[in-house]
Amino acid sequence: MSSPQPCSRPSLEELKIRLGEIYDLQRASAVLSWDQQTYMPKGGAAARGEQRATLSGLIHQRSTDPRLGELIARLEEENSPLDPEQDDHAMVRMARRTYERNRRIPEELIRQLTLKTSLAREAWVEARAASVPGRSLFGHFAPYLTEVVRLKREQSEALGYPESPYDAHLDYFEPGLLASQAAILLDRLAEGLRPLVEAITASSIQIETTFLEDVRDGEKQWAISLEILQAIGYDFQRGRQDRSAHPFTTAFSGGDVRITNRLSSRLETPLFTALHEGGHALYHFGIPCRLERSNLASGSSYGLHESQSRLWENLVGGSRPFWAFWFPRLAKAFPERLATVSEDSFYRAVNAVRPSPIRVEADEVTYNLHIVLRFQLEQALLEGRLAVKDLPSAWNEGMVRLLGVMPRDDAEGVLQDVHWSSGQFGYFPSYALGNLLAVQFFNCALHDLPGLNSSGSTGGLIARGEYAPLRQWLHDRIHSWGGKLLPDELVRKVIGGPIDSQPFLDYLWDKYAPLYGLQRPPAKRSGLKISHLGGE
Amino acid sequence: MSSPQPCSRPSLEELKIRLGEIYDLQRASAVLSWDQQTYMPKGGAAARGEQRATLSGLIHQRSTDPRLGELIARLEEENSPLDPEQDDHAMVRMARRTYERNRRIPEELIRQLTLKTSLAREAWVEARAASVPGRSLFGHFAPYLTEVVRLKREQSEALGYPESPYDAHLDYFEPGLLASQAAILLDRLAEGLRPLVEAITASSIQIETTFLEDVRDGEKQWAISLEILQAIGYDFQRGRQDRSAHPFTTAFSGGDVRITNRLSSRLETPLFTALHEGGHALYHFGIPCRLERSNLASGSSYGLHESQSRLWENLVGGSRPFWAFWFPRLAKAFPERLATVSEDSFYRAVNAVRPSPIRVEADEVTYNLHIVLRFQLEQALLEGRLAVKDLPSAWNEGMVRLLGVMPRDDAEGVLQDVHWSSGQFGYFPSYALGNLLAVQFFNCALHDLPGLNSSGSTGGLIARGEYAPLRQWLHDRIHSWGGKLLPDELVRKVIGGPIDSQPFLDYLWDKYAPLYGLQRPPAKRSGLKISHLGGE
Repeated sequence: MSSPQPCSRPSLEELKIRLGEIYDLQRASAVLSWDQQTYMPKGGAAARGEQRATLSGLIHQRSTDPRLGELIARLEEENSPLDPEQDDHAMVRMARRTYERNRRIPEELIRQLTLKTSLAREAWVEARAASVPGRSLFGHFAPYLTEVVRLKREQSEALGYPESPYDAHLDYFEPGLLASQAAILLDRLAEGLRPLVEAITASSIQIETTFLEDVRDGEKQWAISLEILQAIGYDFQRGRQDRSAHPFTTAFSGGDVRITNRLSSRLETPLFTALHEGGHALYHFGIPCRLERSNLASGSSYGLHESQSRLWENLVGGSRPFWAFWFPRLAKAFPERLATVSEDSFYRAVNAVRPSPIRVEADEVTYNLHIVLRFQLEQALLEGRLAVKDLPSAWNEGMVRLLGVMPRDDAEGVLQDVHWSSGQFGYFPSYALGNLLAVQFFNCALHDLPGLNSSGSTGGLIARGEYAPLRQWLHDRIHSWGGKLLPDELVRKVIGGPIDSQPFLDYLWDKYAPLYGLQRPPAKRSGLKISHLGGE
Repeated sequence: MSSPQPCSRPSLEELKIRLGEIYDLQRASAVLSWDQQTYMPKGGAAARGEQRATLSGLIHQRSTDPRLGELIARLEEENSPLDPEQDDHAMVRMARRTYERNRRIPEELIRQLTLKTSLAREAWVEARAASVPGRSLFGHFAPYLTEVVRLKREQSEALGYPESPYDAHLDYFEPGLLASQAAILLDRLAEGLRPLVEAITASSIQIETTFLEDVRDGEKQWAISLEILQAIGYDFQRGRQDRSAHPFTTAFSGGDVRITNRLSSRLETPLFTALHEGGHALYHFGIPCRLERSNLASGSSYGLHESQSRLWENLVGGSRPFWAFWFPRLAKAFPERLATVSEDSFYRAVNAVRPSPIRVEADEVTYNLHIVLRFQLEQALLEGRLAVKDLPSAWNEGMVRLLGVMPRDDAEGVLQDVHWSSGQFGYFPSYALGNLLAVQFFNCALHDLPGLNSSGSTGGLIARGEYAPLRQWLHDRIHSWGGKLLPDELVRKVIGGPIDSQPFLDYLWDKYAPLYGLQRPPAKRSGLKISHLGGE
């Protein structure tokens, strides 16, 4: 094998200029989207849609320009084999992936998808708003969703796939992952979660949470969310927190990474949201300057991104040492509700588990079961094994089977998520992968930073409110790679093996057994690891 | 002359699509600029510059696309002569103007201008910050400005001009106006202002203003500025007021017109700013929907735009009836400083005249003299009659000659404005034209709405806080034309004649003679009107 050489300058420079232009247009579009969700007055919506459509059109044009294909081909030829650890080589490798993907989708299909998902989203909003117990407007939404599914299947054919039409979409969110691999992982995860959820549901321990409810003093919540962000290392010189209906993180550059949050009647919600979005933001902040304006100025996959947000939200924020530091501060800010609450009661309350029909309100134990259901259904839809008209009953059956709850109506059932109406098939698994990876990464960090989460008399780093070593660890091991590696490559570099559901299950049992007075059943620690992110 | 016919459909449709795309990119860039001046964290600046440069490059490419030229030529041929009162014809006429202008500027010159003005602006910031009495850093800025002037002269040659290199730049801000016409108008204005300023300066009446100063309670100012905006008809469903270092108005569409404001230690400043920016905003709001996303979705010129902001700021906001309505409200909000102040004293205080070296702090009497000086100097620079090195002494000499004041240092002298460092030569006259037109339009509105500004016992519309009839009048006569007409065409439609300085001078004498106990000298009401906006 010949050793890699530096890429030839003129072609590489031209590639960088072209990728930089695409990057600028994407980030400009992101600014328009951020503004739309934070400050834009109502009257701006129609024109904003046109503006974003024009930018999308230009991005697609530039991303499929045959000249881009020529440059990539020349650079591949001159630099074979590509070494993904070198910036320039990684840039060429990832440019090839994106170029192939983009040029395979006919313009007309994109136009149709834009049009039909926009109609479907409207129909979904109407159907969800009007669905109440005993009355569903799923029938109103169904023809639109059918059309979207038809187009997504058409898109699968255009893109090509190794085994399942679902692969073509999953690959967008988790490059290299196949549906069959995701299925094995998620099935095993569901199987492992079942006894834990059953045990918790059967437990006689009821965790008191009323002191978290009916908060009206949003400004205090907001102030503490800012303090937490500051503490974990979110840089307000390079970002800000604004309000939006649905929290999100968006990066306009490494120097401008913004998060949004919302007030809630639950005391802890905006604090956990700050940790979640802050986790995403730290990933963006940590991408090296030298990758700025390139196709590598991003994370490795949606799942990798979610691993960072979940690590801060659940592994840090859901831990005893975290609240050893923050509970006294919170109790001071909310004396009227927390003066008589102990730190232990508070810790228990924010970790209470209760199977519920709504994904975004789910605790960390039941959350992944929501994902398993969506994955199974969307895979079946794309593979033609399930018709849209049968979706509500399949949904309800799955909720009972996996979570033991029945939605009161379709608004809190099959109509609860925006994803399908927007054509985002293949997105859901990333949430679950993020949850699993968060634990695997955190275990690794615990090994490297022994005092990290001890809660003894002196306390570890987290108990002392010192997050810099963990942040640095995540930066060095994960963030600093930017988008150079495929997710499976990066995961193996960090933890020395593939993604796996067992550490996550072990973490849950270790954490929740004492909370709910459970005995973990023996055996079942199969330890079988499935390599499934390296499907290239 | 054959009567105008509807434009041929396919060419017109393609023209509209192309203009719509350019419009979208321009408005996207405006969103990025608004964000930069309101919410962007410090760290976002560098990347934002790249993003805006990429958008500018695309806008220039699209605006000079030969296909656009072909379409315009075909539509001109098919629809000769163009009737500017028809939307489609006006679109073609204005597209021709812009296309000619854009395609005459070589790409390399644009690149050089972008680069050199960016350096010059930096040098200007440094020079201004470091200039103190007895020490000027103009010498640091001079080489950069010299380079900008050289490029602007080069741009004049590229664009072509009827008489003066200055014409080429003036035409961008005031289509059709020649430097020689602006010179006659502004000379006459300066001449007419001289006896008034001298009389005010010599007056023994000193207007008390201390109760307006040292305000610390910015939130109250802000709240009242919002109330005023609401009252004049600013639509918060289609806009918002945010903070920025320098107030401005920006339209992302007819449904999203935003203004910015800033707090001030002067009580009335944010209120007048709200009226000023609100005036600009009402112009944007008033442009008909059917012109949206076209090259006509704008005002007629910078001067026309400024006439709207100045009309609300000075003719409405600076009037007795306005404060008859608002002073009691203000006195209630600021009892500690206004309880012992009469409405009359307040009216006098907000209209106090004092020649000062700073343009943006100038009252409405002396403001235009600042413009006259800048116009004379920038015209001389572009015509090669003045060297940059001689600019500070020419500035100081002009300040003494026109305003009778001498700047303490170059920071409050020749270095006070950003315009020249940014290459914005030809912009200043628009401010003066706006001031003159505001009075001419308001006089016309007074004729059509007789009770508008009476302040008798019952009070007129303004005294009752009823602004809808004035707003409607401005809409029907001015805003509803959008960018269809050249400024001189529009002015003649509204007032039946050309722009003129005499009504402005009459208005000032009528208002300030009683305030300062002046006798107006006889004669001098020359009444000579100069047609100078119709230079096409």
